Amino acid sequence: MSRLKATITMSLDGFVAGPEQSEKDPLGIGGERLHEWMVPLKAFREGHGEQGGEVNASTPIVEGILGNMGATIMGRNMFGGGPGPWGDDPWKGYWGDDPPYHHPVFVLTRYPREPLEMAGGTTFHFVADGIESALEQAKAVAGVQDVSLGGGASTVQQYLAAGLLDEILVSVVPILLGGGARLFDNLGEPKPRLRQTQAIDAPGVTHIRYVREAEA
Amino acid sequence: MSRLKATITMSLDGFVAGPEQSEKDPLGIGGERLHEWMVPLKAFREGHGEQGGEVNASTPIVEGILGNMGATIMGRNMFGGGPGPWGDDPWKGYWGDDPPYHHPVFVLTRYPREPLEMAGGTTFHFVADGIESALEQAKAVAGVQDVSLGGGASTVQQYLAAGLLDEILVSVVPILLGGGARLFDNLGEPKPRLRQTQAIDAPGVTHIRYVREAEA
Repeated sequence: MSRLKATITMSLDGFVAGPEQSEKDPLGIGGERLHEWMVPLKAFREGHGEQGGEVNASTPIVEGILGNMGATIMGRNMFGGGPGPWGDDPWKGYWGDDPPYHHPVFVLTRYPREPLEMAGGTTFHFVADGIESALEQAKAVAGVQDVSLGGGASTVQQYLAAGLLDEILVSVVPILLGGGARLFDNLGEPKPRLRQTQAIDAPGVTHIRYVREAEA
Repeated sequence: MSRLKATITMSLDGFVAGPEQSEKDPLGIGGERLHEWMVPLKAFREGHGEQGGEVNASTPIVEGILGNMGATIMGRNMFGGGPGPWGDDPWKGYWGDDPPYHHPVFVLTRYPREPLEMAGGTTFHFVADGIESALEQAKAVAGVQDVSLGGGASTVQQYLAAGLLDEILVSVVPILLGGGARLFDNLGEPKPRLRQTQAIDAPGVTHIRYVREAEA
């Protein structure tokens, strides 16, 4: 059965983006440091059309973000282009003409928009009728493959609080941001129950995999 | 050279104690769940005069909390007895006549008090002139051994912000408390710089060791 999985990098003090996110600083002040563990990796560089790079204990993690994934769901903020209606010459995402997804991507938004077909198999679908609808559409196209849940924090929180997230891999980095978007916030009651299934010691990062614990 | 080391359990959402800490709930509501990974261990039970128990990947961590430690520093809140002056029949700690420290323990407080000698080599010294003084006194008695920094959050924050904490081992548990005492808070600017040196996958907990990064 298709499962919904998130992979997200969190600072040691709990943030997935720094303070004052903006078009100039999509990850907030200091937020780009969150991904320093990932950028030198061969697996990351290949996904962005570059050659060479390192292979280490983080490699399977990066390969797993989009490996065996038949669809991706992300928030409007991760897709980018600022809040509000899309306008006449709308934003086409941060990833250029050939985004690294190569499968359908469902963008959560309050503003309907026609699907946007890019090169390489990535088509952005804009979902204005809620997280359950996006998940249903994503699972329908993913078939036997899993669905990848991108950020940001608010998107992950909504799926986690609704009990719809099957697995979350948190990559904890030794950075203290002091402010920004907290990952495990706004979860309501009762709190989601998670079970640790794996932890990986990698250069400059610890990857911890959690699955949703069945209801008691 | 003697080093100052903290070992502390943190919920996935960043808390080392739950909300509404009180004499009845010294770790706040739900906070005792933080230590569920530790309580079944032989190494923990032996320290509390009990027999039997489990041995797993967390065992060296528990043994390391007080192993090769010549002194401990803790906050008034961890020592307990409520805030304010000590009174006529003062609180003697949570640990009975024979506390598991077996070395001098320096308790940070605003209220001076005579040293309190317990059985088994533990003497509580009450330090009213600041964290640097407590560290100096602890290192003096520790000699070539290290100094263990206990909690709570505020005590760890003060030593971390002052650049006096050499190592912190954070045991991350898959619990969401939603409120309480945040470990990595109130750290000021510039933020402490940490380097990850080790991560250990253990049942129900991931132990991550960080050392203070030298100034750039």
